[in-house]
Amino acid sequence: MNNYNFGIVGLGVMGRNLLLNMADNGFAVAGLDLDPEKAQSLAAEAAEGHTIKVTTQAAEFVAALQQPRAIMLLVPAGKPVDAAIASLLAYLDKGDIIIDGGNTYFPDTDRRFNELAIQGIHFFGMGISGGERGARRGPSMMPGGDRKAYETLRPIFEAVAAKVNGEPCVEFLGNGSAGNYVKMVHNGIEYGIMQLIAETYDLMKRLYGFDNQTIQQTFEQWNKEELNSFLIEITAQILKKKEGDHYLVDLISDWAKSKGTGKWTSQNAMDLQVPVPVIDAAVNMRDISKYKPERAEAAKLLVWEGEAVESPSAALIARLKDALYFAIITTYAQGLAQLTVASETYSYELDLEVVTKIWRGGCIIRAELLEDFRKAYANNPALRNILLDPSVAEKLVATQASMRAILQDAIANGIPASGYVNALSYVDAYRSEKLPTNIIQAQRDYFGAHTYERIDQEGIFHTRWD
Amino acid sequence: MNNYNFGIVGLGVMGRNLLLNMADNGFAVAGLDLDPEKAQSLAAEAAEGHTIKVTTQAAEFVAALQQPRAIMLLVPAGKPVDAAIASLLAYLDKGDIIIDGGNTYFPDTDRRFNELAIQGIHFFGMGISGGERGARRGPSMMPGGDRKAYETLRPIFEAVAAKVNGEPCVEFLGNGSAGNYVKMVHNGIEYGIMQLIAETYDLMKRLYGFDNQTIQQTFEQWNKEELNSFLIEITAQILKKKEGDHYLVDLISDWAKSKGTGKWTSQNAMDLQVPVPVIDAAVNMRDISKYKPERAEAAKLLVWEGEAVESPSAALIARLKDALYFAIITTYAQGLAQLTVASETYSYELDLEVVTKIWRGGCIIRAELLEDFRKAYANNPALRNILLDPSVAEKLVATQASMRAILQDAIANGIPASGYVNALSYVDAYRSEKLPTNIIQAQRDYFGAHTYERIDQEGIFHTRWD
Repeated sequence: MNNYNFGIVGLGVMGRNLLLNMADNGFAVAGLDLDPEKAQSLAAEAAEGHTIKVTTQAAEFVAALQQPRAIMLLVPAGKPVDAAIASLLAYLDKGDIIIDGGNTYFPDTDRRFNELAIQGIHFFGMGISGGERGARRGPSMMPGGDRKAYETLRPIFEAVAAKVNGEPCVEFLGNGSAGNYVKMVHNGIEYGIMQLIAETYDLMKRLYGFDNQTIQQTFEQWNKEELNSFLIEITAQILKKKEGDHYLVDLISDWAKSKGTGKWTSQNAMDLQVPVPVIDAAVNMRDISKYKPERAEAAKLLVWEGEAVESPSAALIARLKDALYFAIITTYAQGLAQLTVASETYSYELDLEVVTKIWRGGCIIRAELLEDFRKAYANNPALRNILLDPSVAEKLVATQASMRAILQDAIANGIPASGYVNALSYVDAYRSEKLPTNIIQAQRDYFGAHTYERIDQEGIFHTRWD
Repeated sequence: MNNYNFGIVGLGVMGRNLLLNMADNGFAVAGLDLDPEKAQSLAAEAAEGHTIKVTTQAAEFVAALQQPRAIMLLVPAGKPVDAAIASLLAYLDKGDIIIDGGNTYFPDTDRRFNELAIQGIHFFGMGISGGERGARRGPSMMPGGDRKAYETLRPIFEAVAAKVNGEPCVEFLGNGSAGNYVKMVHNGIEYGIMQLIAETYDLMKRLYGFDNQTIQQTFEQWNKEELNSFLIEITAQILKKKEGDHYLVDLISDWAKSKGTGKWTSQNAMDLQVPVPVIDAAVNMRDISKYKPERAEAAKLLVWEGEAVESPSAALIARLKDALYFAIITTYAQGLAQLTVASETYSYELDLEVVTKIWRGGCIIRAELLEDFRKAYANNPALRNILLDPSVAEKLVATQASMRAILQDAIANGIPASGYVNALSYVDAYRSEKLPTNIIQAQRDYFGAHTYERIDQEGIFHTRWD
């Protein structure tokens, strides 16, 4: 008894895989799930040499853990987290540690941190990314909050995390809800990139008439070049899958689901006054995918013929690659800019070199590009936006002509590319020293006497315009 | 004593002007403001025949009103509204009516409605639009909540409201916080149209090289045609204003401010899963306007030369007009679609024919187009999106070629037009019976076992993709 190193509550896909990963690494792990089937099936999965104990009883679970106890919750965000904490509290002692490993909305982490501190329980939120496979073979983990509590568990997390050049993809990120916040923005970027890949597929198929095989081979090739990343890799695999004569992807409904982390990212970015329009577009396009009957009706009313475009060629594929690269860089730039402002607003004290470093492996948005971003922050820790790093800026300058050419084709032919156009118009606004928002200030002053500022003198001005 | 018909709390720009408007219409109106200067200066503005009483004392103010009392709050949204209610409550009786005429965030109205109902006070939220001048000469008013309380005051509101074809721009809209909600979306649409006008100015000036005089004359002319609307009208007036040799607009800073109603519209639309990307873009562009030092730095790094474009001509101006018309219709469509879903979600029971009818006059987004939208809802009250009305769809079909041509120029030349591109990509997505979101569903299933649906059979599916 009480000699298990670590406890996991919630033995769904993530919980069971992380438990097995820890057991692979020689830790004794206890699991708790109210569903006896989940508990039993996990016990059956245990390999030789694993020290695993699985139960449906909170008391038995807590009693099995060595003190101070370390318990990670991997249950759905929201009320289940509060319920899980409540079910454990009676059996815990001061100094025990609870870690929320789910996609919790960050203000909930701040609240729970304070509630549990009063009871002497250390609490921290730790975003975990990598999906099913990542949890099993090495995820990226984003802990924040109680640094001392994290340090006591560091050896376990470093053992199970993904490794890049031997460096584990887990590191303490910052104060309070920093861990959940960074994971939220990770997911926002993930939404953006997934939308961009879907649009690229649409441009290839609907606009330029590529066949499925060419699309598949293109993504497979791109994964060997600058675009090398997990999401490009799995897209190439997805496009290969056949069911009889059909490509499976052609049989999948276009009604996209979501769990809310992308939406939280966009909504919070608006609170922080940080534009993240590619992420907004990704959220909007998942939403519009649900309006299928209206879209079918609109397709008949809002007709556009379009014009002929060029046929697939190596030059066209190169142009598409540039455009996607441009858009993906911009998506990271928006999410990272949000982290910069959030760190100041919420006193997280994030180091974005560390964030980009632990995103290089294990997580869904891992990509060769992350190493470029890490270097940018290493060179200039005060960088406000990665687009201001000369070597990142250089990549955009080199690819922008392709981006513009592809979008001109898309617009001329009525193919929606919301993620793409929002990437480009963000960059074009960002590189505009003067924007036309002077007109908006004049309008606001005209109808609401909201006043305006001037470029030729200090002060606050109001004009009677009529 | 106690023979004043109506009381107004908060004598800022909106409060004082609405009070004078009511007095013009023969009502006896009492005003309360804690600032003695505001109270005095308003008394001085009273014209012959006005019956006005202005005070800094809540007791005196309430005592002056006939019973049941009707008191409208015109104070900044948030805590000032709660403070104003608290300062009055001791003097009120059951059956009295409080109306919140500010830009209150709608959940606050629901809360206050319940709190005051317990005390026997009727409460309703009523959005008011029209700015300074509208409040004085006839605003559009959007009441919701307590229908019976509204009915007792209807004669006052109908007297002071703007009129279109003799019909007052005020009508009871729906349950609960419907009045504040409709006003919030009104403001979201206002953000969108203001952004589109600013972009049009930018396209004319930076992209096509129009001089200020030509831009001014163009807006003035457009206000006489299909684009006739308050915001086009004031833009033409703003562009005329000179200070010495300079156009005033050229001296105004491009650092745009906002009070949050556009942001609330976007954030809530995401909660409702209704895409309103033009409004999102407007919020984002006001935010990016604040990043002036970064933009100056980016301007040096992210250079794009562009290509030659055509010179100003009647054909080009016609194309710009079409494009703006297309984008403005789309902005209304997004906001109205949000109202459709909000009405169902929050049980408002809105009638969008009534909403579009009272928006035809008085308010900031009044426009000739509103009558077309009103007709669309009259023809089909179940319309889910005005783009599905054949005559509205016809307008988009007729103008889309211009929209596409203008955006191709903007993209080729690096001029950001976020509102425009989001209008077009919304329409192009909306008229796509099949979107590429099947890729997103496959990706989610690949890394998170989130499952997917199929087009060839019912059910929920999961694949082992690798």
